[in-house]
Amino acid sequence: MEKRIRNAALAKKVTSAHEAASYIAHGMTVGFSGFTGSGYPKAVPIALAELIQATHAKGEQFKIRALTGASTGPELDGVLAKANGLSYRSPFNTDPTCRNHINSGEIDFLDIGLGQVAQYAEQGVLGEIDVAVIEVSAINEDGTLVPSSSIGNNKTWLEHAKKVIIEVSHWQSIDLNGIHDVYYGYDLPPSRGPIPLTKPHDLIGKPYLECDPSKIIAVVEANQPDRNAPFKAPDNDAKQIAGYILDFLTHEVKKGRLPPSLLPLQSGVGNVANAVLTGMLDAPFEQMTAYTEVIQDGMLDLLDSGKLTVASATAFSLSPEAADRINDNMAKYRGRLILRPQDISNHVGLIRNLGCIAMNSLIECDIFGSVNSTHVMGSRMMNGIGGSGDFSRNAYISIFVTPSTAKDGKISSIVPHASHVDHMTQDNDVLVTEQGLADLRGLSPRQRARAIIANCVHPDYRPLLEDYYERALKSSYGLQSPLILNEALSFHQRFVETGSMLPS
Amino acid sequence: MEKRIRNAALAKKVTSAHEAASYIAHGMTVGFSGFTGSGYPKAVPIALAELIQATHAKGEQFKIRALTGASTGPELDGVLAKANGLSYRSPFNTDPTCRNHINSGEIDFLDIGLGQVAQYAEQGVLGEIDVAVIEVSAINEDGTLVPSSSIGNNKTWLEHAKKVIIEVSHWQSIDLNGIHDVYYGYDLPPSRGPIPLTKPHDLIGKPYLECDPSKIIAVVEANQPDRNAPFKAPDNDAKQIAGYILDFLTHEVKKGRLPPSLLPLQSGVGNVANAVLTGMLDAPFEQMTAYTEVIQDGMLDLLDSGKLTVASATAFSLSPEAADRINDNMAKYRGRLILRPQDISNHVGLIRNLGCIAMNSLIECDIFGSVNSTHVMGSRMMNGIGGSGDFSRNAYISIFVTPSTAKDGKISSIVPHASHVDHMTQDNDVLVTEQGLADLRGLSPRQRARAIIANCVHPDYRPLLEDYYERALKSSYGLQSPLILNEALSFHQRFVETGSMLPS
Ligand SMILES: CC(C)(COP(=O)(O)OP(=O)(O)OC[C@H]1O[C@@H](n2cnc3c(N)ncnc32)[C@H](O)[C@@H]1OP(=O)(O)O)[C@@H](O)C(=O)NCCC(=O)NCCS
Ligand SMILES: CC(C)(COP(=O)(O)OP(=O)(O)OC[C@H]1O[C@@H](n2cnc3c(N)ncnc32)[C@H](O)[C@@H]1OP(=O)(O)O)[C@@H](O)C(=O)NCCC(=O)NCCS
Repeated sequence: MEKRIRNAALAKKVTSAHEAASYIAHGMTVGFSGFTGSGYPKAVPIALAELIQATHAKGEQFKIRALTGASTGPELDGVLAKANGLSYRSPFNTDPTCRNHINSGEIDFLDIGLGQVAQYAEQGVLGEIDVAVIEVSAINEDGTLVPSSSIGNNKTWLEHAKKVIIEVSHWQSIDLNGIHDVYYGYDLPPSRGPIPLTKPHDLIGKPYLECDPSKIIAVVEANQPDRNAPFKAPDNDAKQIAGYILDFLTHEVKKGRLPPSLLPLQSGVGNVANAVLTGMLDAPFEQMTAYTEVIQDGMLDLLDSGKLTVASATAFSLSPEAADRINDNMAKYRGRLILRPQDISNHVGLIRNLGCIAMNSLIECDIFGSVNSTHVMGSRMMNGIGGSGDFSRNAYISIFVTPSTAKDGKISSIVPHASHVDHMTQDNDVLVTEQGLADLRGLSPRQRARAIIANCVHPDYRPLLEDYYERALKSSYGLQSPLILNEALSFHQRFVETGSMLPS
Repeated sequence: MEKRIRNAALAKKVTSAHEAASYIAHGMTVGFSGFTGSGYPKAVPIALAELIQATHAKGEQFKIRALTGASTGPELDGVLAKANGLSYRSPFNTDPTCRNHINSGEIDFLDIGLGQVAQYAEQGVLGEIDVAVIEVSAINEDGTLVPSSSIGNNKTWLEHAKKVIIEVSHWQSIDLNGIHDVYYGYDLPPSRGPIPLTKPHDLIGKPYLECDPSKIIAVVEANQPDRNAPFKAPDNDAKQIAGYILDFLTHEVKKGRLPPSLLPLQSGVGNVANAVLTGMLDAPFEQMTAYTEVIQDGMLDLLDSGKLTVASATAFSLSPEAADRINDNMAKYRGRLILRPQDISNHVGLIRNLGCIAMNSLIECDIFGSVNSTHVMGSRMMNGIGGSGDFSRNAYISIFVTPSTAKDGKISSIVPHASHVDHMTQDNDVLVTEQGLADLRGLSPRQRARAIIANCVHPDYRPLLEDYYERALKSSYGLQSPLILNEALSFHQRFVETGSMLPS
């Protein structure tokens, strides 16, 4: 096993996870590494959860405020939520236990755009960061840190935390060295210049994270794998949605509105995203690039095929097989896979200037295109907005995808009025369901409603929405965005009352 | 009278407004200059409206699609709407007749973020631009154009229109030359680099607009003034709101979270904005800067006082008195007043990097802070989102202001659930009404609801909102953002039914 802790002073700080966890106390704000199941610490949070439970057993309080890059895994959000150890959580979560505690009101959850977290923290509005717990893949001789499978907000946590715990993962590829690009020129205003990145493959920073060694109070060795979810082959809906998107992009290239290499791709994770990427293997686009948040299986296949020349992101989000494939061959991906801090991967100005093509999933969307990415029935948090706002607002073309129904057809993904809005209608350029694609660019709200109802709604719900819209055109207070106030949320109300949005 | 048309070839194209208007035909898309009542053409649209009316009188169709920078004036939106000459309008309008036609469904209105219009047009999604009609203050010897009191999207219209009509305004100050900074380095992706602007006073472009002379089909001389609305002295509510904001900013400086010169200010127009700016005359901030959309009376006073060193924007929005003051002294403001294209004044990346302090008004906002800037009762268009999304999403601190009630107390500006959402809760950092200020930064939705109800709601509505929220906490589907679906829009429903949101 190759030596991972190469700095003598830090090697002396190696200790157990329990010892390290004991530096964390009730009420503290802790900045954890971790982004979409990659690169989060595992040993220390597990030990911390045990400590919390033991403390609770003594009848004493112990809850922390937890900040991360994005979602982590069962060994972090899972165990801490199960231990009732979280009072506050930001910015994104996919853990089911943690989600339940958020929705039962036990955890205060601040759901914010992932590109904005670092600035919020640096501004001081997330509170002082007491401790940072950061997974790395190695510690260099000079004490600099080789990040692991995500960077997320690590630069910010390391710079702003009062104390730092480093968790060195032996599971992560030793060859991750050289995959990262940590930009150190982005301070708080007024001392910010333009970020010198003009293409997704530009390297503008350092391949390591810096940390004042005097702040490092413990180094822990660990071996747990990332939360790598098995790859699900795209289902029929996903394949159909992917087909519409590929046709649309092909058409845009033909019209001269997009170059044949397209523009840098951003893609959310999940079924549909992977289907689109898989479809691109056979599509007529060459020399593509990706400037995105996470690198999933489909991106790796595209890279391997030579169709994609570079994928820039802040984290991996891979199946176990793809993680193995990448870990065994990391060195050969250098320069073609680049991980950056999330305030750079998701920087609004870079996204606008690069002109990304954004593809994100949604929970529901209304007939005008307003998108709810986060709140089931307007109130129950699913995961969070993630990077979808950073990308959709600033993309060259912002595509939203969703099956037209959820829960076996009992829910229409397209409703009269979104029960919560994360992305205003104007941030949704193209809406795609398995029913079809609506190109909303340049359309007024009334034109959008016609296009969405005609192209995207499931046939079970189309008559209901047509009827609603026609009546809204007659009775609405104003006709810019026709609305029947006391029916706007009636689909949701019916679902909550009867278990289905369809009238019985 | 100094000579304004100094290019010999273009001098030969001088013609009447009626002749120029005759080049515009039914179905055409016309890109007009004009931003918040400044720098819009007057003579040509008036002539066009007459032509439209005459054509209608003959029983023939004549409607155009009109694009601008932002709002114009009665001589453009007013006359064209009155003539029933508009089929489509984007991106922003404040004209009452045009608003009525939008809300009666006669005009398709696309309300989009002002910083995004140029890119949309250049992408081709607003349709081909048949004709541009651009007001300028002079034509240089070499045929370049000295813009007038706004730049807006003029660069884009001039570059992308098939034909161009130039309206030379003799009303505009001859000394506007040198006030403008037209950046010519921002092409469509993939050929965009970082914009080399790091401070509001940086000059990165040319002091004139370029236009292929062969496209110019007519030059018209005109003399009408801009729509300069009289300055209203701040009312009591505005003064109170301004007071809270100044206290807040002073506190942030004291805490070291803002520098003593603050950060570049962005400020919407209107009563409250002017009250804040007036208040800054006596506040302990020096060497301030503004990176904003429009320059209003209050900014001018701050510049004159020496408190503000520079104001960068895309347009003036002044009272007649201030317009006179500035027109008589334009030369002395060179380098301190800078007008830029609106895709630069409102560029998301520049706003993020400069770290603007944004202050915008709203129509309504819900107990979680989601902001409706555009749709009265969720359906009736007021003006449009304007630049509020460009700034609030990307500001260092995004402040929203509103009186706590509208229409003599019959409407609460704070409602259980916003009837339309332009800015998601997270884009609203600080909410201020005459009742008080709620600092929402870092708070979860439940924490936000408590802060907003306690600090910002009018006492007449506070018990209603407290009662609603307490019941929502008990019955909501999920507790991330507690919601009672069939009461969410009940305030609006009551207003539409009874003329008041207060129960009788
Ligand atoms: C919106 C989002 C939840 C969709 O997730 P997905 O995995 O692509 O899609 P699925 O269709 O499998 O839906 C996920 C779950 O939401 C449920 N769901 C989807 N639409 C729903 C609706 N309108 N109402 C209620 N539930 C709904 C599904 O039933 C499913 O529930 P389950 O896990 O209990 O089976 C997810 O994309 C997300 O969190 N997005 C926000 C963050 C983001 O966009 N990041 C992108 C930048 S990387
Ligand atoms: C929101 C906005 C309409 C407020 O305008 P304002 O002049 O500052 O504020 P006022 O309080 O005078 O309100 C303007 C009108 O809206 C009405 N209004 C305000 N709140 C309302 C509400 N909740 N419901 C119904 N009407 C409301 C007022 O009664 C008033 O109507 P009137 O003209 O018939 O008297 C205006 O700021 C706007 O259009 N904003 C969007 C664009 C923007 O933010 N630009 C900023 C970047 S420069």
